[in-house]
Amino acid sequence: MSQSPLHVVILAAGKGTRMYSKMPKVLHEIGGEPMLARVIDTALGLNPQGIHVVIGHGKEMVREKVKRNVNWVEQTEQLGTGHAVKTALPHLPSEGRTLVLYGDVPLTDTATLEALLEAAGSEVGLLTDMPDNPAGYGRIIREGGKVVAVVEEKDADAAQKAVKETNTGILVLPNAKLAGWLNGLGSNNAQGEYYLTDLIAAANSDGIAVHPVQVAASYLAAGVNNKAQLAELERIFQTNQAQALLTAGVTLRDPARFDLRGRLKHGQDVVIDANVVIEGEVELGDGVEIGANCVINNAKIAAGSKIAPFSHLEGCEVGSNARIGPYARLRPGAKLADEVHIGNFVEVKNTAMGRGSKANHLTYLGDAEIGSQTNIGAGTITANYDGVNKHKTLIGDDVRIGSNVVLVAPVSLGNKVTIGGGSTITKNCEDNTLVLARARQTIIEGWVRPEKERKQ
Amino acid sequence: MSQSPLHVVILAAGKGTRMYSKMPKVLHEIGGEPMLARVIDTALGLNPQGIHVVIGHGKEMVREKVKRNVNWVEQTEQLGTGHAVKTALPHLPSEGRTLVLYGDVPLTDTATLEALLEAAGSEVGLLTDMPDNPAGYGRIIREGGKVVAVVEEKDADAAQKAVKETNTGILVLPNAKLAGWLNGLGSNNAQGEYYLTDLIAAANSDGIAVHPVQVAASYLAAGVNNKAQLAELERIFQTNQAQALLTAGVTLRDPARFDLRGRLKHGQDVVIDANVVIEGEVELGDGVEIGANCVINNAKIAAGSKIAPFSHLEGCEVGSNARIGPYARLRPGAKLADEVHIGNFVEVKNTAMGRGSKANHLTYLGDAEIGSQTNIGAGTITANYDGVNKHKTLIGDDVRIGSNVVLVAPVSLGNKVTIGGGSTITKNCEDNTLVLARARQTIIEGWVRPEKERKQ
Amino acid sequence: MSQSPLHVVILAAGKGTRMYSKMPKVLHEIGGEPMLARVIDTALGLNPQGIHVVIGHGKEMVREKVKRNVNWVEQTEQLGTGHAVKTALPHLPSEGRTLVLYGDVPLTDTATLEALLEAAGSEVGLLTDMPDNPAGYGRIIREGGKVVAVVEEKDADAAQKAVKETNTGILVLPNAKLAGWLNGLGSNNAQGEYYLTDLIAAANSDGIAVHPVQVAASYLAAGVNNKAQLAELERIFQTNQAQALLTAGVTLRDPARFDLRGRLKHGQDVVIDANVVIEGEVELGDGVEIGANCVINNAKIAAGSKIAPFSHLEGCEVGSNARIGPYARLRPGAKLADEVHIGNFVEVKNTAMGRGSKANHLTYLGDAEIGSQTNIGAGTITANYDGVNKHKTLIGDDVRIGSNVVLVAPVSLGNKVTIGGGSTITKNCEDNTLVLARARQTIIEGWVRPEKERKQ
Repeated sequence: MSQSPLHVVILAAGKGTRMYSKMPKVLHEIGGEPMLARVIDTALGLNPQGIHVVIGHGKEMVREKVKRNVNWVEQTEQLGTGHAVKTALPHLPSEGRTLVLYGDVPLTDTATLEALLEAAGSEVGLLTDMPDNPAGYGRIIREGGKVVAVVEEKDADAAQKAVKETNTGILVLPNAKLAGWLNGLGSNNAQGEYYLTDLIAAANSDGIAVHPVQVAASYLAAGVNNKAQLAELERIFQTNQAQALLTAGVTLRDPARFDLRGRLKHGQDVVIDANVVIEGEVELGDGVEIGANCVINNAKIAAGSKIAPFSHLEGCEVGSNARIGPYARLRPGAKLADEVHIGNFVEVKNTAMGRGSKANHLTYLGDAEIGSQTNIGAGTITANYDGVNKHKTLIGDDVRIGSNVVLVAPVSLGNKVTIGGGSTITKNCEDNTLVLARARQTIIEGWVRPEKERKQ
Repeated sequence: MSQSPLHVVILAAGKGTRMYSKMPKVLHEIGGEPMLARVIDTALGLNPQGIHVVIGHGKEMVREKVKRNVNWVEQTEQLGTGHAVKTALPHLPSEGRTLVLYGDVPLTDTATLEALLEAAGSEVGLLTDMPDNPAGYGRIIREGGKVVAVVEEKDADAAQKAVKETNTGILVLPNAKLAGWLNGLGSNNAQGEYYLTDLIAAANSDGIAVHPVQVAASYLAAGVNNKAQLAELERIFQTNQAQALLTAGVTLRDPARFDLRGRLKHGQDVVIDANVVIEGEVELGDGVEIGANCVINNAKIAAGSKIAPFSHLEGCEVGSNARIGPYARLRPGAKLADEVHIGNFVEVKNTAMGRGSKANHLTYLGDAEIGSQTNIGAGTITANYDGVNKHKTLIGDDVRIGSNVVLVAPVSLGNKVTIGGGSTITKNCEDNTLVLARARQTIIEGWVRPEKERKQ
Repeated sequence: MSQSPLHVVILAAGKGTRMYSKMPKVLHEIGGEPMLARVIDTALGLNPQGIHVVIGHGKEMVREKVKRNVNWVEQTEQLGTGHAVKTALPHLPSEGRTLVLYGDVPLTDTATLEALLEAAGSEVGLLTDMPDNPAGYGRIIREGGKVVAVVEEKDADAAQKAVKETNTGILVLPNAKLAGWLNGLGSNNAQGEYYLTDLIAAANSDGIAVHPVQVAASYLAAGVNNKAQLAELERIFQTNQAQALLTAGVTLRDPARFDLRGRLKHGQDVVIDANVVIEGEVELGDGVEIGANCVINNAKIAAGSKIAPFSHLEGCEVGSNARIGPYARLRPGAKLADEVHIGNFVEVKNTAMGRGSKANHLTYLGDAEIGSQTNIGAGTITANYDGVNKHKTLIGDDVRIGSNVVLVAPVSLGNKVTIGGGSTITKNCEDNTLVLARARQTIIEGWVRPEKERKQ
């Protein structure tokens, strides 16, 4: 590839009227990331000297949500793509090349752009497409492999309309020529805007060759103007991710029902059932199985653990050979050692559990530290919140807690403590004790069951 | 469009043997509505003078489930489509036009039928299709734009079989001719039935032109004879609805995993994650987010509220900026004010909650009225049912209820009441009181843990 | 079909490097069954005299997981398909025919193989395909309907490459010739392996005709080399099953979101909503409705019962007209009589419930026997586990158990017993008694609510 310095200008100032959103268009997400963030990250893969992002509509929101180290350039009026690049002109050196990308064209990949840069050399490179239906797009007029013109649909004659190769708008330009060409742009057209496409004619006038590179698939240069296009690119993005995971050996029961919005690190023999959503940074060890309909967000699950259907994990760590779910909810700060069992309708938040401990039914564990081989009975609640502050519950090893027990924090249970079912524990319990806090069972004499009230 | 009076006859008498169902065919649902109800509603869009629905198999069930104000016409024997329309003849005026529709052709739209009526004028209009595979369908033989015959597959010669345009059966007929044509129909064919299609020949004999109108897509005239076809049209119906919502600005993470069986009103920036089912009348305010796998049925959710995955809402109202779920169950009569939080494994039925109140874990709230800024502890149950009658629980503002509390209704808690964890409350509590109903914590001396029983 | 004795050799010795798995390739599952088990079951449908499965990589694991009564033949070195069949040679009689199948070609059906055997007669039969893209496959060179050669891609000239019919590897061979042909195989090729395909040339040399039979669809002969192909065949398998159920009258709201990993017996008017997974042996009676997102594993559900969304049923029986879910968890040994109601966040394990009994909210029932017309209050727990042993809870007819009750097993409640909310029951209760075990409600005087701690 040519070694001349590279700058990237990303156009991201548009409102996106047809998104019908309060958010500027480039903030809408693909795979859990704003489109603009994806474009910036792709540009970073080219190791450019500078990335200049032209922003306008919702510019504060864009800068806040896309936390990337780029040069933000404000365009106060949106007067067309040519005008937008011109706004960035003061930040570009007079040498080297400038690649123009779009914040609403999210799935261009680095390989495609490298091919474009390679083809362009020190002249002009233009990324083109061969869509199924070229109607509405500018057509690429080639002569001897070089592009001599881009003709808009409305200006095209029959022969030109028959051309199937279309303009994507992505192009690379020599900085030495850029200022001159941009200053020469006119807005004498239907929209009254300055069009970047007109630079192709300028290059031809100047005898600078325009080298076309055709994308391998249309989605690589597809733009998003409405939610239907956003959804379409989302599914392509998800399909591509699923195929990459399958190729790497992950078993996906249904690749069309799998969403990854982040990064998945995985071991061998990972099996993911249908309709699972994975978000953030997730690690799944060897042999981990994720049941149908789970949502896993920022979690680390060690080898051999099985997550049963309908589980919801977020910000947690699960040791090896654990059994989680169904209907388990692990919240941030849940840190489960090896062989822990968390069963149905159990919520664990900011709680560490030692090896082999179990909470199998209808339980809330919050702000607790639990030893190993401890069994938490069904219906147990750590009352960690007094209405204003959170307090800790400490539970030792080999503790057995009965059913429907309340542990009113702050409270501490030693090792081998046994708590009788139905107890509300407010005071610390020493090692090896059996503790109860419940009333005597009595029979109420002379009582008569209520009968059905008469309808009036 | 011609202004002559319009009547619609809908054929809905068939059994639908290949549905293998106790229900008559036209009651099977598309998008949560019986097919026949959809056809009637489409016909209503044409503002006809009368709609005559010919019913036979399961006619009582049809009338009971399709509550529409139409003229029900009983056909005691099913002797073919021609016979069915003849059954409706006494209800049709001698002037104007009659449109024939089918209760098992559910996705025809008003625009298509308006085009057919427009093309027909005062003559005959015939809706045609151009399916991928015309085999088995009657072919449309055109001459100079007019239809001169419909030739059934079995009677077609090679040239006629090569015709790809097929008969859909939907047609509009001049009432002045209808009685004569229908009375002229014979049943001298393989099935021994009276075929409506034979009216095309009758029209030709009478020199009445037959004007064909081709559907824009096959599904618009597709009939349902088995569950595979029902499922196919269901998915087309759902895809169309999803595309309409996308176009209107709703974000659907996966349009192929979205079901709407009813009507969805929505604000701006509504986001619906994968695999959500929406039923009945649902309203989602600006910025509402619905997590993956939720089922929402007849609910009104105000702006800014977020519904986490696996939530099941039915017959409820949710205020603005509420946080619901995951695994929240809102049942009929749940009425939540702004900023209410309902967490995991919480069921709310026939209960009002004031602004900012919370029930975050493992709770059942039924037949209760709860003030604002109140916190319901984990494991709290309103014991609203004494086995025969339901009673009310009243809870004030800024109340703090501990964990695993039972509130035995009828019972009333004033403002700023605090209930200790593990309490069973049977008597009213006055404002600002701390109330407990639990036993003292005791250590059982000399107790020995049970050991594993020997296997015999 | 020819009546000469049939033996089947199934090649199942490969590792499947591109599966990136510790399991040998043939154990990876389609529809919940190892691929090899499916191939064996298909072969069994041909009523062969013997089935010889050639195993190598992971052979112990293969024999353990594929419990089928076949002749396991060990191949110690993997030297190609020809070598593998040769390994089985000592087990084949000198008469009759041998069909060669592959443990990683899971979806071949009996009808296809019967057609192949029929076409082959006492000569050679070769199953061929006509894939969309034949690149990479051996091409079938036909002369006068017979196969004269299989030419590998790399050896093919332009005319041969233009042939679209390809070799699937599945073939039937006359045993009389088999030993001679196999012993004549060489390994003088790029891989240094003995190729079964070379037997086509041997047959031609011997003047034995090779009869090709083309598969009706590519998936019938498609092999699995990686997880992408596994997922692709899984979806085809599921689509086929869904279509068969639709044809038989089952309503599937979305056939593309339905998984059946086992066998489903069903009555009339069964409705299955989107995203349901069915595993093992499942029976659904007339009119049973399964809500969205349910997982049903080895369950028998009688007529008229409705399973609401998010329910998880495993190893259980449900009577007629029951109401289950949403979020109901039925575990092995749950046996529910007619008209039982199990509501949200309720877990039932190894428990029988009599007619009309209800447990509607937040309950754990384990190792219990419950009579009829009994109501189990919200938050009730059967404390069946003392930390080492499981004990039984017996509950009579028409019992009313209050909210948040613990029943400490072993314990027995007679008929018409009423238990007050919040009670922990440790002793048996006689018929018709009202039993309480809870403390008196008291007001704590002089108490002051905790205030928010200052941040330090």
